[in-house]
Amino acid sequence: MAQDLTSKKKVEQLTGVFAAALTPMDDGLNVDHEAFAANCRRLLDAGCHGLGIFGTTGEANSLSADERIAALEALVAGGIPGERLLPGTGSCALTEAVRLSRAALEAGALGVLVLLPFYYKGVGDDGLFRFFAGLIERVADPRLRVYLYHFPQMTGVGISPSLIERLLEAYPGVIVGTKDSAGDWGRIEALCREFPGFRVFAGTERFLLDTLRQDGAGCISATVNVTARQARLVHDAHVAGRDEEAAALQKQLTDLRETIEAYPTIPALKGIMGRLTGEDVWRNIRPPLTNLEEGRADELLSRLRKLGLHQE
Amino acid sequence: MAQDLTSKKKVEQLTGVFAAALTPMDDGLNVDHEAFAANCRRLLDAGCHGLGIFGTTGEANSLSADERIAALEALVAGGIPGERLLPGTGSCALTEAVRLSRAALEAGALGVLVLLPFYYKGVGDDGLFRFFAGLIERVADPRLRVYLYHFPQMTGVGISPSLIERLLEAYPGVIVGTKDSAGDWGRIEALCREFPGFRVFAGTERFLLDTLRQDGAGCISATVNVTARQARLVHDAHVAGRDEEAAALQKQLTDLRETIEAYPTIPALKGIMGRLTGEDVWRNIRPPLTNLEEGRADELLSRLRKLGLHQE
Repeated sequence: MAQDLTSKKKVEQLTGVFAAALTPMDDGLNVDHEAFAANCRRLLDAGCHGLGIFGTTGEANSLSADERIAALEALVAGGIPGERLLPGTGSCALTEAVRLSRAALEAGALGVLVLLPFYYKGVGDDGLFRFFAGLIERVADPRLRVYLYHFPQMTGVGISPSLIERLLEAYPGVIVGTKDSAGDWGRIEALCREFPGFRVFAGTERFLLDTLRQDGAGCISATVNVTARQARLVHDAHVAGRDEEAAALQKQLTDLRETIEAYPTIPALKGIMGRLTGEDVWRNIRPPLTNLEEGRADELLSRLRKLGLHQE
Repeated sequence: MAQDLTSKKKVEQLTGVFAAALTPMDDGLNVDHEAFAANCRRLLDAGCHGLGIFGTTGEANSLSADERIAALEALVAGGIPGERLLPGTGSCALTEAVRLSRAALEAGALGVLVLLPFYYKGVGDDGLFRFFAGLIERVADPRLRVYLYHFPQMTGVGISPSLIERLLEAYPGVIVGTKDSAGDWGRIEALCREFPGFRVFAGTERFLLDTLRQDGAGCISATVNVTARQARLVHDAHVAGRDEEAAALQKQLTDLRETIEAYPTIPALKGIMGRLTGEDVWRNIRPPLTNLEEGRADELLSRLRKLGLHQE
C-alpha cells in the first residue's frame, strides 16, 4: 500500500518520514552495496518518503569519502532513485564536503545534509559561516540545496538560530532546511516559527506529529529503520486530518522509539535488523562502535513486538 | 648551532622537542607545499628534534586524506627527512587511518600519531581497542610504531590508562608512546611512572622539563612553532645536567607559552608567523577556524618580545 503512495510520483521537495538509513557491511567491514540497496528499497517500500543516507546512523564518519561516493553510486545503480535520497556530505575538511556534495548532486539528490565541521571546539559563528559559504561557493552548482545538520551531542558545536538567519540571508534558496537532532522540542518549535518555509526535520520520530503540526518538514530518524511503517501511519493520519488517530498512533510510535533509545542506538538497530532478516551482514559495525552484547537484540525485539511493532 | 646538533646524526627513535607544525596555505586554502617544507626546515634549524605534522595545529582534520598524503610526499621530496617526522594519521574512518599510516611509513616516518576516532561520543574502551587493533592489523607492516594521541578537549573521548595497558599487552613494540594534550600534569606523570619505556610526549612545552625529569620523551607542541629555540635550550640544559639553568629557562619558556595560550592558538601562531616572515601564506586558515582580529598578532608578538622571544 505505502509503496503505491510513495514510489510513483515525482518528488519535488524533501518532506515527510525519512529513515536515517543503516549501512550494512560485510565481514571485512566494507559497505555491502547490494545489502545497502536492498535495505533502502525495504525502507521506501515500508513507507519512507525518503532516506537520509550517510548520517550518524549510517556510520558516515567511519567511512572514507571514496567509500561514501562508491556506495552512493552503487545505490543509484541498484535502482534507488537519487531524488529520494538526502545524503550526508559533511566533513571536517571543506574540500571533502565539497567533493561529497558534488557527488550527491551527480547522483540526483535533491538536497545534502551537512554536518558542522566537528573537530575543533569553541569555534564561533564566523568560522562556521565561512565553512558553509566556502562549501556553497566551491560546489558552485545551482542545484545545490543544503540542510544544516545540528547534532551538538556528537559534534560538540552547534548551529545557532542567528547563524541560520545569517546563512538564509546570504544564500536564500540554497540553505533550505535542517535536521535537528538535539532532542529539544522547544528549539524545533522555535525554528518552525521563526523561519517559515525553512524545512525543519526533527531528528527523532518522537517529535514527528508535533513537527508536522508546526508545518515542519517531518523527521529523519535512526529508529525509523525499524518503525518506518508506524511513522508513516502517523504522517498519513495527520495529512488526512484524522487528528485523534494521529495522536494515538504517535503515542505508540513514541513508545517504540523510547524502548530502542534505552540501548546504544546504532548497534541496537543493526542487531534488530539481523534478527528480522536473518542476514549476516547486520552483525558488522565499524569501530569505535561495538555490537550489542549477546541476547540483548532478542530482548529488545521482544519488547518492541509487545508494543505492536509492525512485522517486516 | 642547533642545526649541527640535530640534523646530521641518524635518528633512531623519536624523542626531544617537537613542534606540532603549522600548515601554510595559499589564498585558495590549498596547502602551500613549498612554504610547508620551508617552515619545517626552519623548525629543524631552530632546534626541533622532530616535527609532529598533521596534528591539531596542522589543521589535519580540515584537510582531506588526499591532501595530507600529497603534502607529506612533497615535504619529503622537498628535503625534509621522513625520519624526523611524526605524521598524524588518525581519522574517524578506520580505512582512512590505515591509508594515511601506510603513506607515513612509505615516507620514512619512524612513527605515526593516531588520534582517537572522534565523531561518536560515549564509546567504550572495547570499541577504541577494536579501532587500534584494526589499524595495526590492516597496516600489517613491521615498521609501524603507533603513538596514541590523547586530546579529550577536542575529541570528546579519551584514552584511559587501562586501555593503554591493554594495547601495550596486545601490541608490544607497536604501541610505543603517546602525545598527551589533556593539559593535566598528574596524568603525564602517572603515565611515565606506570609504563616505563612508553614514550610520553607532553602536548605543551610548559611540561617539557618536568616530563624529561620523569624520563618522558619530551614535548610535541603547537607553540613550539614560535618557541623552538628556547624549548631546545631547556632540553639541552637538562641533558647536560645543568639543572638550575634548565629550570630558569623553563620558567621563561612557560611564560611565553602562557602568553600565547591567552589567544586562540592556531590563529595566533599563523598571525605571528606572518609578522615574523612577512609572508602572505600565513594569512590563510581553513574554516571553521578564523584569523585573529586586526592588530592582535602585533600585540601578541610585542608581548612575546618583551618576554625575550628569540628572534628568527
